[in-house]
Amino acid sequence: MNILYIYAHQEPKSLNSAMKDTAVAAFEEKGDSIKVSDLYALVFKPVLDENDFQKRKNPEKFNPFVEQLHANKTDSFAPDIKEEMYKVNWADMLIFQFPLYFTGFPAIMKGWIDRVFTPGFAFNPLTNSAYDTGLLKGKKAMLVTTTGADKDWYTSGGMHGDIDELLKNITHCTLEFVGLEVLPKHVVYGASSLSEDDGKKELEKYKERILSL
Amino acid sequence: MNILYIYAHQEPKSLNSAMKDTAVAAFEEKGDSIKVSDLYALVFKPVLDENDFQKRKNPEKFNPFVEQLHANKTDSFAPDIKEEMYKVNWADMLIFQFPLYFTGFPAIMKGWIDRVFTPGFAFNPLTNSAYDTGLLKGKKAMLVTTTGADKDWYTSGGMHGDIDELLKNITHCTLEFVGLEVLPKHVVYGASSLSEDDGKKELEKYKERILSL
Repeated sequence: MNILYIYAHQEPKSLNSAMKDTAVAAFEEKGDSIKVSDLYALVFKPVLDENDFQKRKNPEKFNPFVEQLHANKTDSFAPDIKEEMYKVNWADMLIFQFPLYFTGFPAIMKGWIDRVFTPGFAFNPLTNSAYDTGLLKGKKAMLVTTTGADKDWYTSGGMHGDIDELLKNITHCTLEFVGLEVLPKHVVYGASSLSEDDGKKELEKYKERILSL
Repeated sequence: MNILYIYAHQEPKSLNSAMKDTAVAAFEEKGDSIKVSDLYALVFKPVLDENDFQKRKNPEKFNPFVEQLHANKTDSFAPDIKEEMYKVNWADMLIFQFPLYFTGFPAIMKGWIDRVFTPGFAFNPLTNSAYDTGLLKGKKAMLVTTTGADKDWYTSGGMHGDIDELLKNITHCTLEFVGLEVLPKHVVYGASSLSEDDGKKELEKYKERILSL
């Protein structure tokens, strides 16, 4: 199996980094191929703007949807976007690992979605290609995240509410929207206050999860 | 009333830009003061990283939460963050205007949240300052957004689902989390396929909404 591991944490000494390393080792142990897009290390550009396009459909007025469709037709995206698209096409499974920022992606990972999951590549309203007919159909996806707050904040009676409901803009409206089959998420709650021992246990649990995929 | 208008669209000839101009004129017409944070025009940096901090609490290991708390205590954020915080403190109402990207903020606006709504400024888990005790209590907030897809996609039986549920990670877990009172949203559905006449009607409706605030 080919795995694209899209990863967003700034610090190599963090729990998130240890989780990423654990996953890479576990995938290699079971004979899978893995490519990592380490977004902070890549200094990945998260902002969808005119620089994403090497040729413009309409240089007079910037419409992201129009330009993204055109760039897919003419193979004229900026190199960093093409590189990520190449990895998506190669992959059987996409894993997004990130600390939860305001119950969502950190901006750098949201920008990966905004710039890579483009019309003509991941979905296409002009051909009704979305959800069951999303252009990435046949591939799988999984969210792996850590939270600062404890688990009770993310339950239906909790302060934030049910985490599965809060993640639907990602799991349903982003991943399923482009045709991906979404696997159950893997969450480490209260990551900021874990003891070293509990951190090690979380890495063991995560390794088992990866080996079970 | 003092208004901070946080705006994210790349194109000055867009409907979004016309809506922003309409709002600015309407606020001025009713005697309010308005500051606009035009994120693309500012080339606003959306990525939370080490460059956000002029002094580090722990230069050996980067923990965003720890560094943000420390920067608030020591007044040592990067100038662009301080500038936005100054405007938030000045404002009675925050308006976020953006095209909906994958049922959420474009990355550049998510980055504004990640970097400005920091612990010690907008909330503080150490002092239980969130929601009813969020640090921005007393101010109001409103989302103004445009969608590519039609309204029926954003209903409870629609392809994406109920837009109010999908926006809860913003309205509840972000804006209410920091203590803001959230006003009803203003949405222009199917913005990409509006006729010029319908566009003008939407601008009229938006002007009325702003004048009613």
